[in-house]
Amino acid sequence: MGRRPHPRSQQGQKSPFPRLYGRHAVFAALDNPERSFRKLHVTHASAKTIVIPPGLTVQYGDDHDLGRLVPADAPHQGFVLEVDPLEPAWLGDILAEAQTDNDRRPILVLDQVTDPHNVGAIMRSALAFGARALVTQDRHSPSETGALARAASGALEHLPWCRVVNLARALDEIGEAGFWRIGLDGTADTDLETALGIARPALVMGAEGEGLRALTIERCDQLAKLPISAAMESLNVSNAAAIALYAAARRPA
Amino acid sequence: MGRRPHPRSQQGQKSPFPRLYGRHAVFAALDNPERSFRKLHVTHASAKTIVIPPGLTVQYGDDHDLGRLVPADAPHQGFVLEVDPLEPAWLGDILAEAQTDNDRRPILVLDQVTDPHNVGAIMRSALAFGARALVTQDRHSPSETGALARAASGALEHLPWCRVVNLARALDEIGEAGFWRIGLDGTADTDLETALGIARPALVMGAEGEGLRALTIERCDQLAKLPISAAMESLNVSNAAAIALYAAARRPA
Repeated sequence: MGRRPHPRSQQGQKSPFPRLYGRHAVFAALDNPERSFRKLHVTHASAKTIVIPPGLTVQYGDDHDLGRLVPADAPHQGFVLEVDPLEPAWLGDILAEAQTDNDRRPILVLDQVTDPHNVGAIMRSALAFGARALVTQDRHSPSETGALARAASGALEHLPWCRVVNLARALDEIGEAGFWRIGLDGTADTDLETALGIARPALVMGAEGEGLRALTIERCDQLAKLPISAAMESLNVSNAAAIALYAAARRPA
Repeated sequence: MGRRPHPRSQQGQKSPFPRLYGRHAVFAALDNPERSFRKLHVTHASAKTIVIPPGLTVQYGDDHDLGRLVPADAPHQGFVLEVDPLEPAWLGDILAEAQTDNDRRPILVLDQVTDPHNVGAIMRSALAFGARALVTQDRHSPSETGALARAASGALEHLPWCRVVNLARALDEIGEAGFWRIGLDGTADTDLETALGIARPALVMGAEGEGLRALTIERCDQLAKLPISAAMESLNVSNAAAIALYAAARRPA
């Protein structure tokens, strides 16, 4: 096969290091003491709007130069930050921490949700509603990319994110730690609010279309559905997650 | 200036007629008696999986041919349907109908939310939670495109969508018809659930970042916020809309 240039829309993914872009995602990363940086790309105009941290390598370019570092049409707003991936959170730590407090903040578990925009938006809602952590499987989940970080709007820097090798095993541990594992499933008989009750929940959600895998369903203590009309088969997964997180958070303490 | 070919990612928008793509959006349109069709593009493989309605013009192509009809990377799944736009719903009709029933289904009003993926996902949630209609301003809102239809996952065919010239005027009419106009605003003092009470609500939402315009706020009866943590400034607009629609729907009848 002849060589072809990589399509521009994939160049952002070609870097071995995540490239965060856009004002919000880049500023959140710069503010995160846990984050280490490789290089900041800015325009002369955008550079004037921030205080660049001492010691950070800065490369100047024009809008077009920055555009080539990120996916096609990605709104970089004059900021592209090459970073090291964050250290993943450890599920054991999250569960141990849960033993020491008394509140009912949920853990959110995603079973093979692959779209980075959805996962990013879900992180944003999870942080907004006080979730303890996001748990995903290492495979069949997006990695830390600029698109995910942008959709997360800063939440990537703050929400503990556990990437596990075996999701069924992680669900076992979550159950043993006393979380009530609720699988969201449109065919369930029980409404989510009923299932939540006064439990400390782990909210388990599958991809649109595929839903939860059989192995995941087996690990849930209960299946529950959102009370949607028969006119619509399902919701966008990030919308469903936002509602589930809200429903868990709105219960009286 | 020299002539340049249009970037491929915009070709889907170059047609004067909406091009719906993807199995779900196309099938929903084909099932909609209110929809008129211009041409269905299929592959030989995809054609075998459906019964093509009599009288519909069909053009066969390969995946690549279909790909050129839609935005870059749009997952057409072997189906591109060129259609006439739907007749917009009339706000007067929606409000008249609301006079004849006794339930509290909301109207959802979007103030210059421009992203078609967000508006599509919002239509999906609005239909799922029984909203009466979506109201947007003609300008500064997406039109009926394949990307919007795909995100709406069929809801575009069923949810009444009123596109008005003047949103402030529409809000006047909605208020006169007895709807309680609640503007979602992160700086409000009141929680959404409190604001909803037992009202028949119009839920009014602005774009992320910009929020509601001053002229829109003036027309609201009350501003309300979602109870999110201080760790996050805001939610994705479609996630916020999903929660607001859920909060309105979950109230006892």
